[in-house]
Amino acid sequence: MKFADRLMQLGTETAFAVSAEAAAFASKGNKVYPFHLGDINIKTPQNIIDATIVAMNQGKTGYCPNAGIPALRQALAEDANQLRSTHYTMDNVAVQPGGKPSIGKFIQALMNPGDEVLYPTPGYPIYESQIEYFGGRAIPYGYREGKDNFELKLDELAASITPRTRLLIYNNLQNPMGAESSAAEMQAIADLAIKHDLIVLCDEAYFEIRYAGKSTSLASLPGMEERTVLLYTFSKKFAMTGWRLGASIGPRPIIDVIAKLNVNDESCSNHFIQYGAIEGLKGDQSGPRAILDTLKERRDLAVKLLTEMPGVHCYNPNATFYLFPNVTEAMKRAGTEDYEVFRRQIMAATGVSICTRRHFGRPLAGEKDRYVRFAYSGIDIDQIEEGLLKLKAYLDSL
Amino acid sequence: MKFADRLMQLGTETAFAVSAEAAAFASKGNKVYPFHLGDINIKTPQNIIDATIVAMNQGKTGYCPNAGIPALRQALAEDANQLRSTHYTMDNVAVQPGGKPSIGKFIQALMNPGDEVLYPTPGYPIYESQIEYFGGRAIPYGYREGKDNFELKLDELAASITPRTRLLIYNNLQNPMGAESSAAEMQAIADLAIKHDLIVLCDEAYFEIRYAGKSTSLASLPGMEERTVLLYTFSKKFAMTGWRLGASIGPRPIIDVIAKLNVNDESCSNHFIQYGAIEGLKGDQSGPRAILDTLKERRDLAVKLLTEMPGVHCYNPNATFYLFPNVTEAMKRAGTEDYEVFRRQIMAATGVSICTRRHFGRPLAGEKDRYVRFAYSGIDIDQIEEGLLKLKAYLDSL
Repeated sequence: MKFADRLMQLGTETAFAVSAEAAAFASKGNKVYPFHLGDINIKTPQNIIDATIVAMNQGKTGYCPNAGIPALRQALAEDANQLRSTHYTMDNVAVQPGGKPSIGKFIQALMNPGDEVLYPTPGYPIYESQIEYFGGRAIPYGYREGKDNFELKLDELAASITPRTRLLIYNNLQNPMGAESSAAEMQAIADLAIKHDLIVLCDEAYFEIRYAGKSTSLASLPGMEERTVLLYTFSKKFAMTGWRLGASIGPRPIIDVIAKLNVNDESCSNHFIQYGAIEGLKGDQSGPRAILDTLKERRDLAVKLLTEMPGVHCYNPNATFYLFPNVTEAMKRAGTEDYEVFRRQIMAATGVSICTRRHFGRPLAGEKDRYVRFAYSGIDIDQIEEGLLKLKAYLDSL
Repeated sequence: MKFADRLMQLGTETAFAVSAEAAAFASKGNKVYPFHLGDINIKTPQNIIDATIVAMNQGKTGYCPNAGIPALRQALAEDANQLRSTHYTMDNVAVQPGGKPSIGKFIQALMNPGDEVLYPTPGYPIYESQIEYFGGRAIPYGYREGKDNFELKLDELAASITPRTRLLIYNNLQNPMGAESSAAEMQAIADLAIKHDLIVLCDEAYFEIRYAGKSTSLASLPGMEERTVLLYTFSKKFAMTGWRLGASIGPRPIIDVIAKLNVNDESCSNHFIQYGAIEGLKGDQSGPRAILDTLKERRDLAVKLLTEMPGVHCYNPNATFYLFPNVTEAMKRAGTEDYEVFRRQIMAATGVSICTRRHFGRPLAGEKDRYVRFAYSGIDIDQIEEGLLKLKAYLDSL
């Protein structure tokens, strides 16, 4: 079978291999503590499920418009405007089957082969994959450890902009690092985007997954709304990962192109779940509040226990459900510089299953410190305690 | 805003514009008879809805594997084997958010820029769009009027094969024509595919929408299973168009690539509706039988009334829910050779809303006869009668 050459540029999410390994390990009778998952082991709020069932039973089972049902597009525009002080109408919204489809469609709409696209690493690996799959040059930018959290290497980002740079992918409230831009950092990014006429994909999947303070959107800054596409998803805030529902929100000419890509790719998103999504946005908010309370408890405990481990340094980020501790010293104690060896050693000794920096894009030149990612969205608090105490005992024993 | 050059090769489904026009006409207080829709105005069978609700309430709301849940992949393999005498296992199945995603993913997996792909015209317009969008050469093949139904122009198809021909798209039980290959025609296609080492996308969206006889799959013919990808959809048989659920079924190496495209494009299909789909395949079959009974009644009446119209020649196809009458004479009576003029004239005079041949891909060289498409899936039988009698009266009056 001869496949198309373009597949040589197609990346993937290697984290799925960790899930498979953990499942295989568990199937041999071993206890597994699943910190590798970006999934959520909390049920979707019942009012969303109920509204979806009503829509199914009302026969909302036929096609809907390619960009989504008008009422959901309108609700998303209003929700975005309320949280971001933007000026969207339903014409600025194209509903998608998840948050992820916005990545590839944004790139297809705006990037020519050979164009350069700035993207974060460590970061969501699909950025890199989709830029290169469609023939672009993926230009990474990195982060350094700051006082309370990771900070963008703004100087390096600015220096990597060339006349071929067209797009910037920006993931504030960052997976896997939990990084969050200061007001100054965000303004600097806006200044660069405007100065160099960059269009920005603002991945805001975790915009409302936060435990203190308030999220700010790059789209709120002067001059940015007209050059920014927001990646919106119902997955995290409403524990709806498996529903596959999200949206692209941005300037109408781009949204019209994305809707035309919808026509070609999947016609439309599932019709009846869009009614559940409207209930999520406009109905009783006790569901998402309870999800946040549960996640905050988990974060507090996980940060406390990780901080007590030898050779581990962990921030206490206010947003996302990820922790990205520096484990350079812990890996030295474990006698390896190889992420996969370290990850497997930990799983074999303790059952704690994690992803490493390796699952989040190619390393930057000169990258020396070592990091792993703990997701606490898919594991209950008693299991967090049991697993991390085992991990501490193991690291202590080395 | 500067968009990517590739968008110049992106087509669309112009039929959506007809829906918009019909809605605008109706909003002015006019009666519309919606024959333009390929949608189904029949509710999804209740046992499928019920199984979906159970899965939602059981918390099947998190991610599922990229290629779909194993039980659905297994059920689809068994269902295909039973109807097609194939030898699939779950490894041959990648669940998709609809039937349509299989088109673009098949092309991306197997076609290089410059490769030639044979596709039917009139036909589903997304074939042409996706071939050209990914840089291929779309080489159309046509049909002629046979004794009882349309027949493939096999000689012309064979003559258009060159050393650059890589793929063949074949839509037996055809939209918009309702064409169905004879055993001899299908064998001839298989012979060509094997002789020229073509990989085939077999769009079988309407495989089980038939009122007499039994469908045959190209994949059942010797030597074809290993070079065929089936486009499967739940949309038509189970009246699930708005659910967005289907599958690619074929050789494992291709399915593995398609699943990797899933990782990049949308992660996975909606999780809980896959349990509804299993109920559809394995549960009580009275739902799809009732849908077929309803459609057959509509077809019988629509064919009878169309056949009585002056200047209209209509087959009585055993499959699909489309009729594609020759209206060359009727258009002469109406005094126009322009499809859009004819279509709008009919809608203005009678409220009957249809698509024309123009909505189904570029015309072939030398195409002279004129055709329009009546879909009877989205209109009740009393409305079929009322609308088509008005249309007959109008054509009689010309």
